[in-house]
Amino acid sequence: MKQKNLTKVASGGLLNRRSFLISGLSFTSAIPVLASTGSMDNSMNNIAQDYPQWIKQAGHADSEYSLPNQYEKNIKRQLQSSTSETSLFSIWHTPIANQRGIITPSGLHFSINHNGVPAIDPQKHELLIHGLVEKPLKFNLENLLRYPMVSSINFLECAGNTASNAVSFKAMDQTCQDLYGQISGSEWTGIPLKYLLKEAGLKANAKWVIAQGADGGSHNRSIPIAKILDDAIIALYQNGERLRDSQGYPMRLFLPGWEGNANVKWLHQLEVTDKPAYSKDESGLYSDILKSGKIQRFSFHMDVKSVITHPSGRQLLPEKKGFYEISGLAWSGYGKIKKVEVSADNGKTWAKAHLDTPILTKSLTRFSIPWQWQGKCTTLLSRATDEFGRTQPTRDHWKKTYASHSFNHYNAIQAWHIHSDGRVENKYV
Amino acid sequence: MKQKNLTKVASGGLLNRRSFLISGLSFTSAIPVLASTGSMDNSMNNIAQDYPQWIKQAGHADSEYSLPNQYEKNIKRQLQSSTSETSLFSIWHTPIANQRGIITPSGLHFSINHNGVPAIDPQKHELLIHGLVEKPLKFNLENLLRYPMVSSINFLECAGNTASNAVSFKAMDQTCQDLYGQISGSEWTGIPLKYLLKEAGLKANAKWVIAQGADGGSHNRSIPIAKILDDAIIALYQNGERLRDSQGYPMRLFLPGWEGNANVKWLHQLEVTDKPAYSKDESGLYSDILKSGKIQRFSFHMDVKSVITHPSGRQLLPEKKGFYEISGLAWSGYGKIKKVEVSADNGKTWAKAHLDTPILTKSLTRFSIPWQWQGKCTTLLSRATDEFGRTQPTRDHWKKTYASHSFNHYNAIQAWHIHSDGRVENKYV
Repeated sequence: MKQKNLTKVASGGLLNRRSFLISGLSFTSAIPVLASTGSMDNSMNNIAQDYPQWIKQAGHADSEYSLPNQYEKNIKRQLQSSTSETSLFSIWHTPIANQRGIITPSGLHFSINHNGVPAIDPQKHELLIHGLVEKPLKFNLENLLRYPMVSSINFLECAGNTASNAVSFKAMDQTCQDLYGQISGSEWTGIPLKYLLKEAGLKANAKWVIAQGADGGSHNRSIPIAKILDDAIIALYQNGERLRDSQGYPMRLFLPGWEGNANVKWLHQLEVTDKPAYSKDESGLYSDILKSGKIQRFSFHMDVKSVITHPSGRQLLPEKKGFYEISGLAWSGYGKIKKVEVSADNGKTWAKAHLDTPILTKSLTRFSIPWQWQGKCTTLLSRATDEFGRTQPTRDHWKKTYASHSFNHYNAIQAWHIHSDGRVENKYV
Repeated sequence: MKQKNLTKVASGGLLNRRSFLISGLSFTSAIPVLASTGSMDNSMNNIAQDYPQWIKQAGHADSEYSLPNQYEKNIKRQLQSSTSETSLFSIWHTPIANQRGIITPSGLHFSINHNGVPAIDPQKHELLIHGLVEKPLKFNLENLLRYPMVSSINFLECAGNTASNAVSFKAMDQTCQDLYGQISGSEWTGIPLKYLLKEAGLKANAKWVIAQGADGGSHNRSIPIAKILDDAIIALYQNGERLRDSQGYPMRLFLPGWEGNANVKWLHQLEVTDKPAYSKDESGLYSDILKSGKIQRFSFHMDVKSVITHPSGRQLLPEKKGFYEISGLAWSGYGKIKKVEVSADNGKTWAKAHLDTPILTKSLTRFSIPWQWQGKCTTLLSRATDEFGRTQPTRDHWKKTYASHSFNHYNAIQAWHIHSDGRVENKYV
């Protein structure tokens, strides 16, 4: 490759994005097939020998609902090792390193079920709004489907995503799915909750809404009324079709940018109150223990965060000294991503990555930057900043805020160490 | 309902969007459950009687790849009546009236297969670029996966979508899926083709690219080089995962805004030439016969178009004189949707509908407007206009341009007749 033509934007091999538009450069060892003769007939003759079997025969039938190709069957959700398929509390990780773009297929969306997945008859499911309202109301699906709906592409992340990086003394040599599998992106569609609460009529002392699921165990969380009247929806659809079972079928609360478990699934009751319920999960699992020993409750926002998905943990770069695109995801529960910086030299120099449009509020944002790997060991980092200037801390800095065994809301800069043989490994910096 | 509080924006019952934020109005017959006592204990006692069975027991296990709920199994693609499951040429319609938002689930994306669906081994699949290039190149999947990728949310529409409205003498009493089922929206991810052609090196007389599929029969189309160098991609991913079989697994050409069949599936060859191939499909099925008898070839762009999906053909409004949200989809193969106007009085008056963000180029755009149906028969219309001022013609106007048996690129204003009993029926106006 004529490297003199390539504009470096930082050391370690980070290149200008327009590098790929320089004529005649070979980037990824594409195979030259023959000298160009200018004669189409000649090249066609050469090529004809390669025609595969499937081009010579009729294809098979299509279907009413297509599924992934048989060769893609290993791309699936994985149980987190601390849970099992039959345990009531189960954690399923999305294969985030296999995803491109900002939409996660609904079948692969991460899910965390506190009490298993209930089998709800949608015709018998009801949503009750009561408590500090003028007129308590009950809705069935038929009622709800007549209300105005809005759609929004948002991420959803568990408060405990990347917990092992927070608590493990040594960086675990795991995949991006293992470490970051509790984040997904979808188009969510549903009814703005403010419409339903306006109809019920809020009383003056209405301050909180206690949302309860219809799962066995009734997972519930207390949500400030301001969020409910801002962008909260009763989500009925995900990526164009009705919710999947483990996303809360037939309906869930959806709170853009807020920690996953507050987005109560199988929603069947909203009780308007003047104080929080201090329920089991909000007082226990989803409270954050600070360095001082104090407890931080109701920390709903997911903070700004990013991860390089290509290359990432336990992948193997197929070719030494090769040309690669570094690609990853960034998000912030406060708003839009403003910039993502990438370092290919363990943080000595940084370059701004390209952000794919549309850049949406409280949504996954895809970033990328071309990289010429020199075949030596190095460390890749990404650091996202949102529109409010919030940026990611180092791991050391994050650990100074929280108790040593605290694991929620971990959003430190992720480091991937590239070994000289091309192996990619999780690393603390 | 206190109608005096509702702002009408056109006759026939079209209302201002903020109607739903007026306190205390009952919009969709939600069920008042009891007089508010202000005592949470009281209401909890009343409600407890309604607790369903599934809240009293443990849920079931989750899965590696979730599928739609069993109660949603009737939401599926349907074969167009002119084709059968075993015919080589098959047309599968997407259930567009069941979709909300702008993303179609990949399993429900419309598909048209000219020669059945080939069963391709991705490890043996190759993409060849040859013809008027300096250096013909062959790529396998491993090569291609290292190139930079871009993602874009775009619609895909068959040139023949809504053909029956173009050619049928009488408006057929069919569903939105029957009439409009050849349009879908997805996030497509792949490699900008300009990168690969820069690497191969275009010769000065390169004007067209002949794209050929690896299906039995080798469906192929000639694409102007300007489109290839603009926004064409080799699509490898749809909605975050690899392409489904009938969308071209393992790769397809994707040309934002251009008629479906030009987006060649199972792509295995791009031949750069100085003239089009005038292949079977571009000379026959996908040429448009004009009123004058002349043939219009290479009419790639899908024009501006819209359809109300709720309510739509063969649906039944559940309640008379009720409050509904009119919702639908608009799109243009030239760029962004600028506005959608809706009429609830057969075109006498029109009001601008709300457009959901993000409004993306060459993408589905969701529009909506609240509607107070008075229970009388009437006709609903929608009319989209794109950022270049292109707008939809009436059916009469469209029929003046094309021959009576011409059916591609039909984009006339759709009318849904609302009968006084709530039935919705396809209508020509």
